[in-house]
Amino acid sequence: MSFNYRMILKFISIIPIIMGLSMLVPAVTALYYGEWEEFKVFMALAVTMVFIAYAVFYFLRSARGIIRMRDGYLIVFTGGLTACLLGALPYLACDHTISVIDCLFESISSLTTTGATLFDLGVLPKSLLLWKMVCNWLGGIGFLILCVSVLPAFGMEGKTLAQSEVPGQILGKITNRTSDSAKYLYIIYIAFTAAEFLLLWMGPMNIFDALVNTLSSVSTSSLGDINQTFSHYGSFYNDVVIGTFTLLASLNFTLYFLIIHGSWKAVLTNIELRTFLFLIVLGAVLVTLNLYWTKTYDFTESIRYGVFQVISMATTAGFSITGYADWPSFSLVILTILMLIGGCSFSTASGIKVIRFLVMCKLIARGFTRRIHPRSVVAVKVGSNAVSALRVSYTTVFIMVYFILIVFASILLSLQNLDLLTTLSTAIAMISNVGIGFGDVATGNFSIYCEPLRLVLCLLMIIGRLELFTVITLFMPSFWRPDKYRNY
Amino acid sequence: MSFNYRMILKFISIIPIIMGLSMLVPAVTALYYGEWEEFKVFMALAVTMVFIAYAVFYFLRSARGIIRMRDGYLIVFTGGLTACLLGALPYLACDHTISVIDCLFESISSLTTTGATLFDLGVLPKSLLLWKMVCNWLGGIGFLILCVSVLPAFGMEGKTLAQSEVPGQILGKITNRTSDSAKYLYIIYIAFTAAEFLLLWMGPMNIFDALVNTLSSVSTSSLGDINQTFSHYGSFYNDVVIGTFTLLASLNFTLYFLIIHGSWKAVLTNIELRTFLFLIVLGAVLVTLNLYWTKTYDFTESIRYGVFQVISMATTAGFSITGYADWPSFSLVILTILMLIGGCSFSTASGIKVIRFLVMCKLIARGFTRRIHPRSVVAVKVGSNAVSALRVSYTTVFIMVYFILIVFASILLSLQNLDLLTTLSTAIAMISNVGIGFGDVATGNFSIYCEPLRLVLCLLMIIGRLELFTVITLFMPSFWRPDKYRNY
Ligand SMILES: [K+]
Ligand SMILES: [K+]
Repeated sequence: MSFNYRMILKFISIIPIIMGLSMLVPAVTALYYGEWEEFKVFMALAVTMVFIAYAVFYFLRSARGIIRMRDGYLIVFTGGLTACLLGALPYLACDHTISVIDCLFESISSLTTTGATLFDLGVLPKSLLLWKMVCNWLGGIGFLILCVSVLPAFGMEGKTLAQSEVPGQILGKITNRTSDSAKYLYIIYIAFTAAEFLLLWMGPMNIFDALVNTLSSVSTSSLGDINQTFSHYGSFYNDVVIGTFTLLASLNFTLYFLIIHGSWKAVLTNIELRTFLFLIVLGAVLVTLNLYWTKTYDFTESIRYGVFQVISMATTAGFSITGYADWPSFSLVILTILMLIGGCSFSTASGIKVIRFLVMCKLIARGFTRRIHPRSVVAVKVGSNAVSALRVSYTTVFIMVYFILIVFASILLSLQNLDLLTTLSTAIAMISNVGIGFGDVATGNFSIYCEPLRLVLCLLMIIGRLELFTVITLFMPSFWRPDKYRNY
Repeated sequence: MSFNYRMILKFISIIPIIMGLSMLVPAVTALYYGEWEEFKVFMALAVTMVFIAYAVFYFLRSARGIIRMRDGYLIVFTGGLTACLLGALPYLACDHTISVIDCLFESISSLTTTGATLFDLGVLPKSLLLWKMVCNWLGGIGFLILCVSVLPAFGMEGKTLAQSEVPGQILGKITNRTSDSAKYLYIIYIAFTAAEFLLLWMGPMNIFDALVNTLSSVSTSSLGDINQTFSHYGSFYNDVVIGTFTLLASLNFTLYFLIIHGSWKAVLTNIELRTFLFLIVLGAVLVTLNLYWTKTYDFTESIRYGVFQVISMATTAGFSITGYADWPSFSLVILTILMLIGGCSFSTASGIKVIRFLVMCKLIARGFTRRIHPRSVVAVKVGSNAVSALRVSYTTVFIMVYFILIVFASILLSLQNLDLLTTLSTAIAMISNVGIGFGDVATGNFSIYCEPLRLVLCLLMIIGRLELFTVITLFMPSFWRPDKYRNY
């Protein structure tokens, strides 16, 4: 049983076309700001990539055949790898740095919507900065498309669990045809982008800053420290707009399909949504009170900064208030927990995902009941739906692997002998794609790490974004030689 | 369905008798060192406790009836509570402190074999110090008895899992009668105690120090920082003896039954033992190399201190080398992982336990296989035995609850606003009953915490020792009113 390489290559050839076309945005920016060197680079790359990729696509246009689960894994992995490599080219070609690893890091950080950086964003040429933000945006929509098209076929249980929450009839209407769902996705995502851009531009931001902030927040990627970088102007209005749209981007996008179909009731009773909002409200109240009681800020500022930072972490966006890493320990613990749980499934957010967290809670509740009544048979229910034993087992394994991965990442990162807080929070920030940590990495700048560990960070971001299994499965022998492992 | 209160009380009345008799040891010590005040207190308490408890026992001697699982829970919980309260009396009566909470903390810390303290052990009257060590020792044997008598009946899966590793025939011979196993347990435990005591006394220690060190190491309780307290003399010989006996105490005691019956083969092929030793060797090699390469110590010292500290953490004993908390981050991460995994089941060690860690690893391996072959049905195997689905589910829930508990504990402890490292490591040190952490709690002295949080620490130690479920189950409504929850 071999892979359908022609089909896989055909799929992947679409990626350079999209990325090439996207490079026209920074190209225009370079032109506007007179960055001639960058303009030439972006134009040359765009033309080359589109031309070659289109040729490959045209050559393979007749490729047909069934995409098996194993082919799907390979498409996701090599497609993602291609995107990361291409995304790194502009940094390298513009001579901003001579380190290939650094360029790869920037590209991977953007496409996984992590938003971490090794550069000083303040001095980066504007066109390159915008390219980073465009990659953020592409990463966001890319993951959503992945969710709706490739992943369900091979059982990413996060989304499937969430769908079992939505009335079957409506769901059937919406997702009957993948291409239809994908179309809706583009429309919703672009609508959010346009709306946020206009709102920010109307406010105190100029057009460039509005674009940068929009692209990084609608994809829950962030810019790191909002005050230290730029364009924030300390404006409360900006806080509200950015906070709102990161939140919208981290909700389950099925809900927007439902709203389009007028099924408000299904939205309002959605258990994942309710849990997520409950967690955010609870977190915001606790952090606000803690900030106020410890006299970190006055009452108004406590609310403003507390709520913003809680939303920023829970959505795994990772915008940060200057000095938030020096907040009292209680607030930091709450923020870390929210960061680990992450956003809703089928959104641009990352982390464990609220739906898996819910399954875990239910599983634990059942565990206690079973202790007293060992012969009881109770299904794990989320909302009104029973979750199958296989899905429960997927979820528990997922969560365990998540924590084990954090542990392994910490072991590797600790080799540099930074303090434990920085080490551990880097591991969490990378795997949950939040992009900011505590200690020395509170600003979202990870240049403190040495080159080999920067590669480790890249790997962690990819593993986090692709929900662990896709990546790790590739390293299992039974994936490559299924005929040898028939007994399983 | 009510509880069998008479039987429960009869069981519990044995505890004051044992503890009263044990008080004769510090009483004799007080006499020897001329601590008259302490002598009077210990004698008065001993006589009163034994007298009253024997009266209760005599009065209830005719109590009969079945001990149901629910009764068992209550015996464990109230019995443990009684022991903790009685253990605190000498500190209070000797006027060493006026804080009831502090006395309770010392008592709980000893009986759970955590070994943490709020006092300055160096200035504590010798008889009181010895009482703390006697409580350590009682806590160790107490937990072993619990494992062999009460816990299996209501499914503490750690031990049961481990037993499935032992050939059924031999196991049947050994554990057919609980009272027999218990007798073997006493003999083995006392033999270890005697052997270590003699070995230490033969070395550079005086008799008192040898006793103190023996009682605290054979129960994996520790004394905190071995250099800062006393009696260590910087002796390599002492390191070896203490290290060996903490290691022996943290192995599955079933193995000693097997050795007594001459079943060496079953011992040598035991998967839990092999895994535990593998983890320790791996950890020791990694920490030693790390210490040497970072020039923390020279090569010989790196081996000596590295191996000792790894054994101390993996067995959840918690003896510490002065300044170990300033070791490079890599070593600290390794030590933390070993601390979380803990020792073997059915030993005086605490933590998640190696057998559960093994089940988790197997479960994850199966999870990956299932991703690629969703229809495959593979049982989780430990060694050559398949683990039932119910036990697997118990184990996963246990591990999840373990981590959630660490998270909740961190939230509570962070209210005092110590640094995050101290906060998190305190939570782990308490729940895994290790008794030392990093940051401000590296010496095993937790007096940095305020009174209300000291109570939280007490609770965490108890929950950790009683393997979570016993405690948490008590707070479930269905435990108290099973008739109302028939449907489960
Ligand atoms: K992010
Ligand atoms: K201990």
